Amino acid sequence: MAKQEDKILLAHGSGGKIAHELVNRVFVTALDNPMLARLDDSAVADFNGRLAFTTDSYVVSPIFFPGGDIGKLAVCGTVNDLSMSGAKPLYLSLALIIEEGLPFRDLERIVASIVKAASKANVVIATGDTKVVNRGSADKLFINTAGIGMVPPGVDISGNNAQPGDRIILSGTIGDHGIAVLSQREGLDFSTKLKSDCAPLNRLVADMLEVCPDIHSLRDPTRGGLATTLNELAQQSQVSIRIEEEAIPVREEVHAACEMLGLDPLYIANEGKLVAIVPAEDADKVLKAMRANPYGRQACIIGEVRTGNPGRVVMQTRIGSSRIVDMLVGDPLPRIC
Amino acid sequence: MAKQEDKILLAHGSGGKIAHELVNRVFVTALDNPMLARLDDSAVADFNGRLAFTTDSYVVSPIFFPGGDIGKLAVCGTVNDLSMSGAKPLYLSLALIIEEGLPFRDLERIVASIVKAASKANVVIATGDTKVVNRGSADKLFINTAGIGMVPPGVDISGNNAQPGDRIILSGTIGDHGIAVLSQREGLDFSTKLKSDCAPLNRLVADMLEVCPDIHSLRDPTRGGLATTLNELAQQSQVSIRIEEEAIPVREEVHAACEMLGLDPLYIANEGKLVAIVPAEDADKVLKAMRANPYGRQACIIGEVRTGNPGRVVMQTRIGSSRIVDMLVGDPLPRIC
Repeated sequence: MAKQEDKILLAHGSGGKIAHELVNRVFVTALDNPMLARLDDSAVADFNGRLAFTTDSYVVSPIFFPGGDIGKLAVCGTVNDLSMSGAKPLYLSLALIIEEGLPFRDLERIVASIVKAASKANVVIATGDTKVVNRGSADKLFINTAGIGMVPPGVDISGNNAQPGDRIILSGTIGDHGIAVLSQREGLDFSTKLKSDCAPLNRLVADMLEVCPDIHSLRDPTRGGLATTLNELAQQSQVSIRIEEEAIPVREEVHAACEMLGLDPLYIANEGKLVAIVPAEDADKVLKAMRANPYGRQACIIGEVRTGNPGRVVMQTRIGSSRIVDMLVGDPLPRIC
Repeated sequence: MAKQEDKILLAHGSGGKIAHELVNRVFVTALDNPMLARLDDSAVADFNGRLAFTTDSYVVSPIFFPGGDIGKLAVCGTVNDLSMSGAKPLYLSLALIIEEGLPFRDLERIVASIVKAASKANVVIATGDTKVVNRGSADKLFINTAGIGMVPPGVDISGNNAQPGDRIILSGTIGDHGIAVLSQREGLDFSTKLKSDCAPLNRLVADMLEVCPDIHSLRDPTRGGLATTLNELAQQSQVSIRIEEEAIPVREEVHAACEMLGLDPLYIANEGKLVAIVPAEDADKVLKAMRANPYGRQACIIGEVRTGNPGRVVMQTRIGSSRIVDMLVGDPLPRIC
């Protein structure tokens, strides 16, 4: 391999000959599917039903971290956003902004990770785009994925649908992703065994919908953490939410790291967890279905929806007192997703 | 307004309180529509038919240029990619990666431009995302838009469909966008009157399809210019293409700038032009329909599709000789779109 081919050049984003070579060498081969291989400006497919559409850009630093990388994150994150509307994810777009000089092997490793994650989530990378910017004009690699999914008939999941009396279920431990990325970035060694929880949650949601098509709200507590997500749901539905600190699972390593750094696990990003708001009478069967799925083994009821004080989230602490849990203010952990 | 609110902060991308304020203040108000205002992880809409899906990231520098800005470009570029499959553009996603410190007024000006362009193209911004990265980790602002459109029944447009004998139509002058951006970036004054051709082409394509549902191929010659686009079409359809230099309209200012800088207008990006490959017997009526549309006034037949030498593009020059026109090699004008 010629030396110049070891790194991404500006010309790889030019739209010209070398850009076509990159697309064919790295993307079309790896992401082998007929929609993408047509190489037209748009992918085309038949679609009949209720369409869910979402987008997210991923700017995580570093691009490789314990338990994943920016590619896996970009697939799982958008798969999860679709899943949170109850949709079955079908198609993703994949758009890369690459800083000139990125090693080819890093790009290939990330594309391999994208392929693996897309296969696991059973979604097709249907269309894509690659831009290259001058050295110093971006930080290694940013990825945007947009996603299209189909919402099954009868499913109506929204942050607006929480009702007083509903139970709040959390699918597992919080803070794993944020602390894993932070420890990699800062070279901290307090959490060598900790990995990001980055995972596709579409099958977990499908399992939940099978036993309870009437799930009211679903959301994955990414940026801003569990606290911010609960505040969003309380505000959107104009209800209050009460949670119990003791019920919220936090790994020992995450707890220790947060203590040391003065962070609160409630505000740390997760990439493989969800919060579900379900009718009280359905809570047990939803919980049972979740615990039977690898991504919901530690699912538990953490609280309930109440009337009064619309938009307020209150937590009963371990020592028995109550405190208001606000949205994240400021940003203790930038570029975590 | 408090001083800290004059610029975008890292916390505006945190997912927390100040991020919600940004979304509500800048996006939800400006992009007022019920799909976005739900503020769920995905937008949901009914869809029945053939779906076209595309994505593009925009990294143009500078973010404001004569005739447009990165916001207008991000809407028009994706509207045009959908249009090139014959689809009627319906929904766009909008994802911003902002460098910390971007003036709020720049962001608001760009969002206003997005609103205007989306309204002109009659598309809904259905879902969005905002990330903020540390100063120096991006260059002011990158935008990704993905788009969803509906392909009308009976329309089958692809770069694979060009047939020997087909006529090649170009919708107007080439090189305007690339030279306008370049002159702004480099502070060149040879083209003070030149503006980017950045425009939504969906209505032009609808007008063309009305008189000729059997259009074989459509493509907008953006990165890599007309030369690269024609090479793509010749390769995808395994045909050769012959064009006439004299037939290709180039503005005097673009011609002069290219002469001075040693550039070839055939390789300069356009953002409001298209190439159509149509059956010979339909060429005149397509041309007539194009010339009746504001974005096709200068449309003309520039060549034809031939058998033999699959993938080759040959140009008959003004002086009567023939030369092979290859794809763009290298990148004379990075970050032009």
